[in-house]
Amino acid sequence: MKTVFVLNGPNLNLLGTREPAVYGAQTLADVDLLCQQACARHGFALQFRQSNHEGQLVDWIHEAGRQHAAGELAGVVLNAGAYTHTSVALLDAIKGTGVPLIELHISNVHARESFRHHSYISPVARAVMCGFGVAGYGLAIDALAQW
Amino acid sequence: MKTVFVLNGPNLNLLGTREPAVYGAQTLADVDLLCQQACARHGFALQFRQSNHEGQLVDWIHEAGRQHAAGELAGVVLNAGAYTHTSVALLDAIKGTGVPLIELHISNVHARESFRHHSYISPVARAVMCGFGVAGYGLAIDALAQW
Amino acid sequence: MKTVFVLNGPNLNLLGTREPAVYGAQTLADVDLLCQQACARHGFALQFRQSNHEGQLVDWIHEAGRQHAAGELAGVVLNAGAYTHTSVALLDAIKGTGVPLIELHISNVHARESFRHHSYISPVARAVMCGFGVAGYGLAIDALAQW
Amino acid sequence: MKTVFVLNGPNLNLLGTREPAVYGAQTLADVDLLCQQACARHGFALQFRQSNHEGQLVDWIHEAGRQHAAGELAGVVLNAGAYTHTSVALLDAIKGTGVPLIELHISNVHARESFRHHSYISPVARAVMCGFGVAGYGLAIDALAQW
Amino acid sequence: MKTVFVLNGPNLNLLGTREPAVYGAQTLADVDLLCQQACARHGFALQFRQSNHEGQLVDWIHEAGRQHAAGELAGVVLNAGAYTHTSVALLDAIKGTGVPLIELHISNVHARESFRHHSYISPVARAVMCGFGVAGYGLAIDALAQW
Amino acid sequence: MKTVFVLNGPNLNLLGTREPAVYGAQTLADVDLLCQQACARHGFALQFRQSNHEGQLVDWIHEAGRQHAAGELAGVVLNAGAYTHTSVALLDAIKGTGVPLIELHISNVHARESFRHHSYISPVARAVMCGFGVAGYGLAIDALAQW
Amino acid sequence: MKTVFVLNGPNLNLLGTREPAVYGAQTLADVDLLCQQACARHGFALQFRQSNHEGQLVDWIHEAGRQHAAGELAGVVLNAGAYTHTSVALLDAIKGTGVPLIELHISNVHARESFRHHSYISPVARAVMCGFGVAGYGLAIDALAQW
Amino acid sequence: MKTVFVLNGPNLNLLGTREPAVYGAQTLADVDLLCQQACARHGFALQFRQSNHEGQLVDWIHEAGRQHAAGELAGVVLNAGAYTHTSVALLDAIKGTGVPLIELHISNVHARESFRHHSYISPVARAVMCGFGVAGYGLAIDALAQW
Amino acid sequence: MKTVFVLNGPNLNLLGTREPAVYGAQTLADVDLLCQQACARHGFALQFRQSNHEGQLVDWIHEAGRQHAAGELAGVVLNAGAYTHTSVALLDAIKGTGVPLIELHISNVHARESFRHHSYISPVARAVMCGFGVAGYGLAIDALAQW
Amino acid sequence: MKTVFVLNGPNLNLLGTREPAVYGAQTLADVDLLCQQACARHGFALQFRQSNHEGQLVDWIHEAGRQHAAGELAGVVLNAGAYTHTSVALLDAIKGTGVPLIELHISNVHARESFRHHSYISPVARAVMCGFGVAGYGLAIDALAQW
Amino acid sequence: MKTVFVLNGPNLNLLGTREPAVYGAQTLADVDLLCQQACARHGFALQFRQSNHEGQLVDWIHEAGRQHAAGELAGVVLNAGAYTHTSVALLDAIKGTGVPLIELHISNVHARESFRHHSYISPVARAVMCGFGVAGYGLAIDALAQW
Amino acid sequence: MKTVFVLNGPNLNLLGTREPAVYGAQTLADVDLLCQQACARHGFALQFRQSNHEGQLVDWIHEAGRQHAAGELAGVVLNAGAYTHTSVALLDAIKGTGVPLIELHISNVHARESFRHHSYISPVARAVMCGFGVAGYGLAIDALAQW
Repeated sequence: MKTVFVLNGPNLNLLGTREPAVYGAQTLADVDLLCQQACARHGFALQFRQSNHEGQLVDWIHEAGRQHAAGELAGVVLNAGAYTHTSVALLDAIKGTGVPLIELHISNVHARESFRHHSYISPVARAVMCGFGVAGYGLAIDALAQW
Repeated sequence: MKTVFVLNGPNLNLLGTREPAVYGAQTLADVDLLCQQACARHGFALQFRQSNHEGQLVDWIHEAGRQHAAGELAGVVLNAGAYTHTSVALLDAIKGTGVPLIELHISNVHARESFRHHSYISPVARAVMCGFGVAGYGLAIDALAQW
Repeated sequence: MKTVFVLNGPNLNLLGTREPAVYGAQTLADVDLLCQQACARHGFALQFRQSNHEGQLVDWIHEAGRQHAAGELAGVVLNAGAYTHTSVALLDAIKGTGVPLIELHISNVHARESFRHHSYISPVARAVMCGFGVAGYGLAIDALAQW
Repeated sequence: MKTVFVLNGPNLNLLGTREPAVYGAQTLADVDLLCQQACARHGFALQFRQSNHEGQLVDWIHEAGRQHAAGELAGVVLNAGAYTHTSVALLDAIKGTGVPLIELHISNVHARESFRHHSYISPVARAVMCGFGVAGYGLAIDALAQW
Repeated sequence: MKTVFVLNGPNLNLLGTREPAVYGAQTLADVDLLCQQACARHGFALQFRQSNHEGQLVDWIHEAGRQHAAGELAGVVLNAGAYTHTSVALLDAIKGTGVPLIELHISNVHARESFRHHSYISPVARAVMCGFGVAGYGLAIDALAQW
Repeated sequence: MKTVFVLNGPNLNLLGTREPAVYGAQTLADVDLLCQQACARHGFALQFRQSNHEGQLVDWIHEAGRQHAAGELAGVVLNAGAYTHTSVALLDAIKGTGVPLIELHISNVHARESFRHHSYISPVARAVMCGFGVAGYGLAIDALAQW
Repeated sequence: MKTVFVLNGPNLNLLGTREPAVYGAQTLADVDLLCQQACARHGFALQFRQSNHEGQLVDWIHEAGRQHAAGELAGVVLNAGAYTHTSVALLDAIKGTGVPLIELHISNVHARESFRHHSYISPVARAVMCGFGVAGYGLAIDALAQW
Repeated sequence: MKTVFVLNGPNLNLLGTREPAVYGAQTLADVDLLCQQACARHGFALQFRQSNHEGQLVDWIHEAGRQHAAGELAGVVLNAGAYTHTSVALLDAIKGTGVPLIELHISNVHARESFRHHSYISPVARAVMCGFGVAGYGLAIDALAQW
Repeated sequence: MKTVFVLNGPNLNLLGTREPAVYGAQTLADVDLLCQQACARHGFALQFRQSNHEGQLVDWIHEAGRQHAAGELAGVVLNAGAYTHTSVALLDAIKGTGVPLIELHISNVHARESFRHHSYISPVARAVMCGFGVAGYGLAIDALAQW
Repeated sequence: MKTVFVLNGPNLNLLGTREPAVYGAQTLADVDLLCQQACARHGFALQFRQSNHEGQLVDWIHEAGRQHAAGELAGVVLNAGAYTHTSVALLDAIKGTGVPLIELHISNVHARESFRHHSYISPVARAVMCGFGVAGYGLAIDALAQW
Repeated sequence: MKTVFVLNGPNLNLLGTREPAVYGAQTLADVDLLCQQACARHGFALQFRQSNHEGQLVDWIHEAGRQHAAGELAGVVLNAGAYTHTSVALLDAIKGTGVPLIELHISNVHARESFRHHSYISPVARAVMCGFGVAGYGLAIDALAQW
Repeated sequence: MKTVFVLNGPNLNLLGTREPAVYGAQTLADVDLLCQQACARHGFALQFRQSNHEGQLVDWIHEAGRQHAAGELAGVVLNAGAYTHTSVALLDAIKGTGVPLIELHISNVHARESFRHHSYISPVARAVMCGFGVAGYGLAIDALAQW
C-alpha cells in the first residue's frame, strides 16, 4: 500500500474563513476528508499536513523522499501557498529527492497579482493545476493513481 | 444533454510524431477516443476539433459561446498550443463569450522555454492544468462534470 | 466616388453582447448602418467587413491598397481588435500599401490591461482615436472627408 | 448654455513656427477661431487657454471641475503637450474633479520618440485622439456635443 | 517659538470632494485647524499652505531652509501629492537646505497604482508616513515635538 | 480591554548592538517598556514579541486574527524586519485574517539599499511609517487609539 | 528527385511595389523564376508559395514534414515575413516536423526596427541569412544542395 | 551686439550654501559676475536668470527663441538643474525654437545618483558639459564665441 | 582556543544522495569529519550544524556573533544553500553581528540557473568561494587560519 | 583584380579542435583553402587573416577601407567571433570606412546563449549569415561576386 | 613644465574621412596642431597619441599615472571613442592611477544611438564634454590650465 | 612536472599602489613570489604573467590549452580584472581549450559596483573565489593540487 503526501503551506489553516470569495467556504478539515475518500478509492494511505514554516515543508518533502527511495510513495500533492513564489529551498528539496509531485492551487493564481504568476516549484513538478477549487485535491489524487 | 468542446490548436495534429519524449506516443485520434469515453461517462456530447488557424479557434469559441447562451454547453477544454502565448484574440473571445473553460497543456510548460511561461488565456480561464500528459483531457472532462 | 473601407477585427462580431459595460449595447449591424449614413453624408462608397482571421485582414488591406493605387480610396478605418497588439503583419500591410488609415477603438484602451497600451498599428496610422464608443466610426469618416 | 474648456499646454503657443512638418502652419490663434466656430455650431461657450506652467493647467482643470459640479460644463479638450508624459498632477486633477475630458494631440505621438508613447492622462480621459492635425479640435468638440 | 511648515501639493485643495472613499470627507480647512491645534499643544507657530505649482513648493522649502539656518524651524511636514513621484526639484530643495522633514500621505499609497510606490522625496526625508488619514498630520507634528 | 500585538521580526533582538548609527542605542527591552507605557496611556493590553522565524510571525498574525474575530483586538504593529521584503506568507496572513495593521520600520528604509524599498506588506497594511526611530512604536499605538 | 519548399509569408505578394528602397524592384514572380532556375541547377523540384495566413504556413510546413519523413525533401527556405517575430506556432511546426530549414529575409532586419531583431524561428532553423536581397533565395537553394 | 542667455533652474539660487563639497562655495551672484566678464571678453550682452519654476524656464527659452529668429542671439547656456532629468517641456521648447544651446552642470552628474544620468535636454542641445565647477560657465561662453 | 562555525542550510542533509553529478558522493557526515580534521590542523574548536529553517540559521549567526563579541570566534563558514538567493534575514544577521564570514557553495553556482547567480549574502561576506566541491570546506578553514 | 578580405576574430584559430560538435572538424587552414578556391572562381585576390586582438581587427578594417576608397575592394567577410557581441569599435570601423561587409558565423548563434543573439556589427553589415558551417565562407564570396 | 596627455581611441585616425556630417572635416593631424597651440598658450608639454587597441590606451593611462605620481602631469584629455561604452579596463586604469581626466567626445553622443549614452569613464572623470567639435580639445586644455 | 599558469589581466600591474584599501599593499612581484612558493610546495612549474591586452590573455589561454592537450598542465588561475565583466573572447577561449581554471579576484567583487557582479568567465570556470586578498592565489594553487 503506497502513501500519498498532501502537504499544505502557509495560511491554508485559514481555509473557510480566508477570503471565501477566492478560496470557498470549505475548511482544511473538509479537504482532509475529501482526500481520505479519494485515497480510499485508489487504495492509498494518506499523510495530510499543514504548516506555516518553510523549513517544516522542506523536512516533509525529505520524509516523502525517503519513502520514495523505499518504493512506498504514490506521490506528493503540494499546495505550497505563498512559498510557491519565494522558496528556492522547496525547489531544491523536490529536485534533490526526486519525488513525483503535483503542484496545486485552489484559486486560479494567474487571475491574481502578478507576483503569483511565477512559481519556483513548477519547473520541478511533474504537473501543475490551479483554479479547480478544493475539488482539485481529488483530481490530483486520481491523477497519481493513473501514473 | 450538454456539449463539451475540446479544441486543439496548432501542431497538435502532429501528436504522436512530434517530440515523443515531450508529448508521448499517442495520436490526436487516441485523444479523441479518450475524450469520447470520458464524455460518455458523464453523459456529455463531444465536439472534438483541431486547427492550425488562430481565427478558426476564435470562431469555434464563438460557436461554443452561442451554445453557452442557450444553456447547452458543459464547458470548453482548450489546448491552444502555441497560440496560448501569443493570442490576445483568444483571450477576448473567451472573455467576450463568458464560456467556462479549462486551459490544458499536455507537457509541463513551466519546465520548458521561458516564452511558454506566459499565457494570455490563463487569466480568463476558470482553471488551468499542465503536465498530466494526454490523461489530462480525461481529468478536465471529469472536472467539468463536477461544476 | 471614392470608397471607405471600415475593417473590423476579431470578436467585433460579438458587439452588443460582449461586455456591454465596456463596448455598449449596439451591434455590429448598427455600426454598419451608422457608417452607411456617415458615408452617404460625404458621398463615399462603403466596404464594411469583419473577420477573426489576421490573414484576412491583411488581404483586405491589400485590396484597399490596390484601390488606393488607382486613386479610388478615401481611406481605411481599422478597428483591429486584439490584433492591434500582436500583429506585425498588419503593420507591414499598411506600410507596404501606404493606405491612409485611421486606427479606431471603441473603448479607451489606455484604461484597460497594460498589454492593450501598445499598438503595432499606431506608428503607421495617420491618426488614432479611442474611447468615443461606436460614435467614433462616424467621427473617423468625417475626418476622412476633411483630408 | 454649457461651456467647453480647450486647454493647451507647454509650447503650443509656438504653433505655426514650431516644426511645421510635424505640427502644420496654423497658429494657436487659428485654432482658437476654429474652436469658436465649432462651439458656435453646437451652442457652447468657449474658454480657450494656453500655459507653459503645469500648476496653471491644474488650476484650470479645477475651475472646469467647479463648473462641472454646477452642471455648466460640456467638457474639456486637453492638449497637455509635454506634460502628457510627465504630469501625475494633471492625472490627479482630472480624476479628482471627474470632468469629462478628451485628450488631444495634433501629431501622431505614436510615430515619434518612445517617451511620447506613454500618457499619464489617457487612463482618466474619456477618449483620446491624435494625428488629426488641428482639425482634431473641431472633431473633439463635435464629439462633446454627442455625449 | 519655533515654526512648523505644513506644505500641501497639487490637488490637496480638492480635499473633501476628491475621491472621498480614498481621502475622507474632511476639507483642507479642517486639516489646517487640526494642525493649529497640534501646534498649540507643542508651542509651535504654524505655516499652513497649499499650491498646485512645483516651483512654489520649492520656493517654500527654501523659505523654511532660511528659518532652519536661523534656528527657528521645528520642521516641515510635506504632503507633496503628485509631485512626490515626479519632482527631482523637491528632492534637491530638501537636500540643499537640510530641513528636517516628514513626508506624509493621507492614503496608503502602496495600495494604489504602481507609479505611486516610488517617491523622490523619501530618501531625503527623515521619516515617512502614509495611510493614517488626515490624523497623520497631527501625529507628524507630535513627532516633530519629540525630535 | 482590547489588546495590541507588537510583533518584531528577524534580527530585532539585536537592537542596541546592531548598527547603532542606523537603529539607535535602545534595546528591544527598552522598546517593550515604551510600548507598555503607550498601551497604558490608552487602556490597551500588550502582546510584545520577537522571532527570527517567518512561520512564527505568520502563526502570531493568525492568533491576532482570532482575537480580531472575537472583537478583542485593538490592532497589530508589525516591524517585520527583513521579511518585509521577501514574505508573501505574511501578506497572505494579514489579508486572510483582516487584522488592522500598522507597518513600522525604525530606520528610513527608503534611504537604504534598493531591495528595502519594496514591501510585500504595505499594500495590505492600513498605514505605514518609517524613520521615526523607536519613538515610532509609541506613535503607532497612539494612532491605533484614534481608530 | 527531391523537393525544395520556398515559403513566403505575409505581404511578400507586395514585392516590387512595397518600399522598393528596402525590398528592391523585383516581384514575387521574379523570385519564383529565380528559384526555378536555382532548383534546375541542382536537380530539385520546387514548391513556391505565398500566404498572408499564419495557419496556412503552418499547414505547409506540415506538408513539407510529411515529404521529409518520406525522404523526399531537400529542405525548406522560409521567408516568414512579419510572422518571424510573432509566431510560436511556426517555431513549433518546424521543431515538430524536424524539417531542415533556412530562414531568409530579403532586407537586413538588424538595421531596421528593434522588434524585427528577434526571431522565433532562428533557434530551430539550421541556418539564417538576411540582407542579400532576392539573390539570397538562390544562395539558399545552393546551400541546400551542399547539405 | 548679440545676447547670451544664461538660464539657471531650480535650487541654483542656493549655490554657495547647498552641499559645498559638491557645488563649491561660490554663489549665484559670483557666477553672474563671472558670466559678465566672459561676455565682456567676447562683446556679448548677457541675460542671467534663475527660476525654480519649469514653466518660467520654458517662457525664457521662448524669449531667447524670438531673439534667435531676429538674429540677435549668441546662444543659450542652460543649467536646468533637476528639470534636466524630468522636463519634456524644456526639450520641446529647445527643439521648437531651435536655439543653439549648451547644457551645463556644475558637478559631474555621472558620478552621482543614477536618475541624474539621463537628460531630456542633451539630445536637443548642441553640446553638453559637466564637472567643470562654476568655471564651466566661462568655458561655455568661450565656446559660443567660437561658433 | 577559538571556534569555527560551519553552518549548512536547507537540503544539505541530502548530500551524497542529491544530484551526485552536481554535489558529489560524499555525505554531510563526511564533510563534518573533513572540517574536524581541518580545525584540528589549526587548533580551532568546531561547531558543525545543518538546518532547513531560515530562522534557525539566523539564530546560529547570532550565537556566533556573541562569541565574536567575546573574542572567541575564528570565523563562520556558511553554505546557506537556497537561502543564499532569498534571505535578507541572513544578510541582516551577518551585518548586524559583524562576524567574519566565508560564503561557500559546493557546486559552481554560476554555471547553473540564473536565479542562483544572485546572493544576498555575498556583499556582507568577507570572501566567497564556489565550485571546489566539498574540499572547499577545508580551504575555507585554512583561509580563516590566515586571517 | 579586386580583393576580398576574410577576417577572423578571436578563437577561430582553434577551429577543428574547439567544440567540434558546434564548429565542425575543419581547421582554419581548410577554410583558407576553401576561400582561395571561391576567390579563384570569381577572379578575386584574397586576404585571409585571423587575430585574437580587437584592435588588430579594427586596423584591418581600416586597411580594407583604404582599398575600398581606391576602388580595389570586392568586400569584406567578417567572422568577428566573440567581438561580434561586445565591440562597438568594430561597428565604428565598418561605419567609418563604409566597406561592403558580410557578417558570418559558422554556427547558428541564435540557437546558443542569449548574449550571442545581439550583434553590434549586424546593423552596419550589408548582409548577415549564420549556421551554414564553413561552407558559409564560400557562399559569402559567391554573394560578393553578385554585388 | 607639466605635460598634457591627449589620448584618442579607436577609429579617431579616420577623422576627416569618417562621417564628416558627424565629425567634421578636420583630420587628427589638425587636432594635434590645435592641441599644440593650446598647450603652448599655457606652457604645457603635449603627448598626443591615438590607438585602436584598448590595452594600449590602458598602458598610456598608466604612463600618465607615473607622471602624475611624480607631480609632472597637468592632466589627461581622453577621447576613448567606442571604448567609452565598453571598457571597464579604462575605468579601472583611471581610478587606479588617480589621474585628473577630462572625457571628451567630438559629437554630441546623447543625440546618437542609445548604447552611446552610457559611459564607463564618466563616473571616474573629473569632467565631461561633448558636442563641441574638435574645438572641444582646446577648451579642455584651457580647463586643465584653470585647475 | 606539470605547469600552473597564473594569468593577471588589466591594471593588476598597479597592485600595491592602486586603491590599497581595496587591494592591499602587496605588489604583483610579491604575488609572483607567493605563487612560486605555493607551486614549489606542490611540485608545479609556474608561468606567472600580466597583460593589459584582452587578445594577449586569449593567446595565453590558448598556450595553456596546448599544454593541457599534451597532459602537461596542472591548471590555470585567472584574475582577469576588468575583462571578467566584458570579455566573451575569454569565455570562448576557456571553453574552446577546455583548460581547468580557477577564477580569482583579490577583492570581494560582490561588495562593489553592480557591473562587477556579472562574470562571463564564471560559467566556464571550474571554481571561483574572491575576497581572500592576495592569499587567494596560494589557496587556488593548493586547490589545483587536490584535483
